[in-house]
Amino acid sequence: MSSERLIYLPLGGAGEIGMNAYVYGYGEPEQERLIVVDLGVTFPDMDSSPGVDLILPDITWLVERKERIDGIFITHAHEDHVGAISHTYDELGAPIFARPFTANIARRKLEERGYPEDAVTISDAWPEIVTVGPFNVGFLPISHSIPESAALVIDSPQGRVIHSGDFKLDETPLVGEPFDPNLWVEVCKNGVKALVCDSTNIFALSPGRSEATVGPEIEKLVRSHSDGIVVATTFASNVARVKTLAEAGVRAGRSIVLLGRAMRRMIEASIETGVLKDFPSVISPEDARQVPRENLMLLVTGSQGERRAASAQLANGKYMGMELKEGDLFLFSSKTIPGNERGVIRIMNQLSEKGVDVVDDSSGHYHVSGHANRPDIELLQDIVNPQIVVPMHGEHRHLREHVKLSKKKGRSAVLAINGMMIDLSGNAPKVAEYIETGRTYLDGSVQVGALDGVVRDRIRMSLNGHVLVTLILDEQDEPLGEPWCETKGLAERGNSNAVLVEVFEEDLSQFLGRADAKTLQDDDVLEEALRRIVRKAGKDEIGKKPEVTVVISRMH
Amino acid sequence: MSSERLIYLPLGGAGEIGMNAYVYGYGEPEQERLIVVDLGVTFPDMDSSPGVDLILPDITWLVERKERIDGIFITHAHEDHVGAISHTYDELGAPIFARPFTANIARRKLEERGYPEDAVTISDAWPEIVTVGPFNVGFLPISHSIPESAALVIDSPQGRVIHSGDFKLDETPLVGEPFDPNLWVEVCKNGVKALVCDSTNIFALSPGRSEATVGPEIEKLVRSHSDGIVVATTFASNVARVKTLAEAGVRAGRSIVLLGRAMRRMIEASIETGVLKDFPSVISPEDARQVPRENLMLLVTGSQGERRAASAQLANGKYMGMELKEGDLFLFSSKTIPGNERGVIRIMNQLSEKGVDVVDDSSGHYHVSGHANRPDIELLQDIVNPQIVVPMHGEHRHLREHVKLSKKKGRSAVLAINGMMIDLSGNAPKVAEYIETGRTYLDGSVQVGALDGVVRDRIRMSLNGHVLVTLILDEQDEPLGEPWCETKGLAERGNSNAVLVEVFEEDLSQFLGRADAKTLQDDDVLEEALRRIVRKAGKDEIGKKPEVTVVISRMH
Repeated sequence: MSSERLIYLPLGGAGEIGMNAYVYGYGEPEQERLIVVDLGVTFPDMDSSPGVDLILPDITWLVERKERIDGIFITHAHEDHVGAISHTYDELGAPIFARPFTANIARRKLEERGYPEDAVTISDAWPEIVTVGPFNVGFLPISHSIPESAALVIDSPQGRVIHSGDFKLDETPLVGEPFDPNLWVEVCKNGVKALVCDSTNIFALSPGRSEATVGPEIEKLVRSHSDGIVVATTFASNVARVKTLAEAGVRAGRSIVLLGRAMRRMIEASIETGVLKDFPSVISPEDARQVPRENLMLLVTGSQGERRAASAQLANGKYMGMELKEGDLFLFSSKTIPGNERGVIRIMNQLSEKGVDVVDDSSGHYHVSGHANRPDIELLQDIVNPQIVVPMHGEHRHLREHVKLSKKKGRSAVLAINGMMIDLSGNAPKVAEYIETGRTYLDGSVQVGALDGVVRDRIRMSLNGHVLVTLILDEQDEPLGEPWCETKGLAERGNSNAVLVEVFEEDLSQFLGRADAKTLQDDDVLEEALRRIVRKAGKDEIGKKPEVTVVISRMH
Repeated sequence: MSSERLIYLPLGGAGEIGMNAYVYGYGEPEQERLIVVDLGVTFPDMDSSPGVDLILPDITWLVERKERIDGIFITHAHEDHVGAISHTYDELGAPIFARPFTANIARRKLEERGYPEDAVTISDAWPEIVTVGPFNVGFLPISHSIPESAALVIDSPQGRVIHSGDFKLDETPLVGEPFDPNLWVEVCKNGVKALVCDSTNIFALSPGRSEATVGPEIEKLVRSHSDGIVVATTFASNVARVKTLAEAGVRAGRSIVLLGRAMRRMIEASIETGVLKDFPSVISPEDARQVPRENLMLLVTGSQGERRAASAQLANGKYMGMELKEGDLFLFSSKTIPGNERGVIRIMNQLSEKGVDVVDDSSGHYHVSGHANRPDIELLQDIVNPQIVVPMHGEHRHLREHVKLSKKKGRSAVLAINGMMIDLSGNAPKVAEYIETGRTYLDGSVQVGALDGVVRDRIRMSLNGHVLVTLILDEQDEPLGEPWCETKGLAERGNSNAVLVEVFEEDLSQFLGRADAKTLQDDDVLEEALRRIVRKAGKDEIGKKPEVTVVISRMH
């Protein structure tokens, strides 16, 4: 028996939703040739990553094996699948493969940061094959909420793996290829070793609905509104939805305006690559000013409440010369991703203050998910009929439920979270190794490790405030003048009603008056002592222990 | 015509959900005698109020009119209605009135902070009347998700106002009084001037369901699980639900354990005040260790993912000697309040990691809301038949929708948000005045205004990091040594790969070498110059402008 093995290693996306990055390898242990599937980002939040711009998978393990990477394959152009390619390009440098629409978006990302376009090689859909190292990889079309989404058919000497990518089973997706069960049956008929599969909607028990079901409802809504402007927001990358919205507007006698950079870029990319052929003509925001409000429909970015997107700006005031008012209608043709509720609700209330009527998807009429529900996942499993199921693209609870479902259906399945290397070579999956994984923060223009302490310090300052203590010691190590304190993020006065910094300075002075020479000579001891005094005084005066930075200057 | 007027002024709860505080007044303008209805809190979040412990309404307006306040009436014992009484007691000092269960909870709150119990006067339900100043106030029972919730019947020389409090129309609430339509008809038959009404569920289009509907479903679920421990979480104050859960457990042959301080306190208060008469017997966590896992049911706090509550601790590890594992079942008999999703999902995934099956209310079987849905709100309006409707307890969008509904039903209605004083004297409501309102943060043990800049500084530090610059100048105003920098919450190295503080120090030194005497002599000018240099260097090196604190020490 060969000692070569086929491995699967998620570095992101398994045990979380977001930041997808999966590795496959084939070869002798520790000498496997590698391919990477997707390199996505996830978005920061104030609770855990304040000030951070983007969150990337930690690719240390890959960088250390850089010379063994034969290619990076991107399944589709959502940020959580393609967003990290430009931020990891310097370190990985491997060729990137994608279908035309995805490649168009990927190239724009690389270009923006000054990297060469030709880092991305365009591949057509199955049956075209990309051969890299021991792998033959094909892009098998599957429906999702973005054009040209693909599953990957990954062939190695140890058999065929189907990596589902993000998917739903939509036979009428409006834009892009319908799900083609016959093609899938054909691809899978000679046996599939493993299906690595999207788990997002495993808890949704009814079959998913087609993109085609929302059009009539949206049209009914837009037609029913005759007063003012109609605004609709959705993910710009959901080109089919944007088209549905635009067509509904046109049929209701409205001119279409696209607002927000991503909205224009996605439509542009769709037209350039031919995935979108008959998008209604649009007018510019400038021309829109000449059009009566009841003949306008705005399609805008910011369905998740993002602060700088068009939705937020329209809710806040003017944007590109447009201003909403009483009589206008605002449609969220979208679902709020958990964690984004506050931002979305803020916008809804700002719109309400302007007298704008807001319609969201609580009725279930104006949005459908891009992910397969539980019965669809079962159906895909039945079509692919894999030896092993490896759930991915899900939090722990989704992966666990997906494993339970698979086992109930009589298949071998494994719960693999980020960092668990799975050996797929045998008849059952085996955990081969645990790799240290994590998150890298893009912070301004630099990358910092999530565990470097940088963001931890920010969170502590935001919870506890910050006190600065400066002390000057003379040549004899005696305090020169009094210690000086400044605070940031703390109440001015405490319970005693004294000014807080004066309480700190008084307590520090008293301590320094009593301190022995040994203490005063040792920076570390002195610093720690001063910090403790301030933290204790904080606890007494304001009921919280602030963060403290002590700067000791010595005159020698 | 009398120049006396009847006014309504929300200080919290109108234009938001939380922090309820409503004022009614009667008398000559600026000499009205006042009553306060509810004094609640709202909860902080990392996005807008990091480090804050509780958010209270800004009661400055009330404090300035302290001698005109005749009483504080608490409708029910939820934190957003009663939570601020101990934090405002020193400043207001007015007598507090409540029904027995609410008074029990309110007194515990006052006692904890050393205030006298007798600040709270117990009133029985309608037809008992409390007379204070020009007002006669009665507590009219209405169902909600806590025992002894009441609407207030507020009579003044200008007629009767019904303040709904939080309510649902539940004729089988299991604990506490059923909604009694006949009593309400009787109270309202002689005409109601204004109905000030809960708006929370105005967007829920189907009639609300009774608390009695969840019991059979919960029992079915608990009975279906025979492996390990069953844990259920809900708001501790939802005593009816806690009882339903406990009874389901007992019927399935399980002993009940209450975990979490609030859970034990609420049950204790319910039994003390007689609202809960036949709660199943419970066992202590210590005794529970002797009971087989399949005979245990834990009822625990923390349905909203609160970090220190029993749910979070059980998800994280051990709590009170109990530890969950494979085969256990965890039921969220609750709805996640918008904004709390991340915390709840974190717990669900931690439980999944332990192999615990999690059931939430996505099926709609295990929870019902405590608030009236749209048809129920309409029904109450029809029963009360008020001249004027004043929506409260809602965000702007809820209040606006509620006003629209009321007008559609042919009633006069007014959208009054916090700070809008409404004159209810005439046939239609009039805005009498705009009062400055806001939020007060309880931060550790002190109160700070939301606009004082304290929390703004914390947020800035958490977004941008913090740089400390210290500079010592000699008697001739010349730098003594080099400037010194320390950073907190910033990457160690920038794009040039140099150490960040060294870049700052180098740039500062260069500037100081060129600076003229005038600059060096003026603290303000020098400080601003140093700050700008650090911010610019930050932008260049790490792509972000940090917060900067400059400390200049002069040797004279």
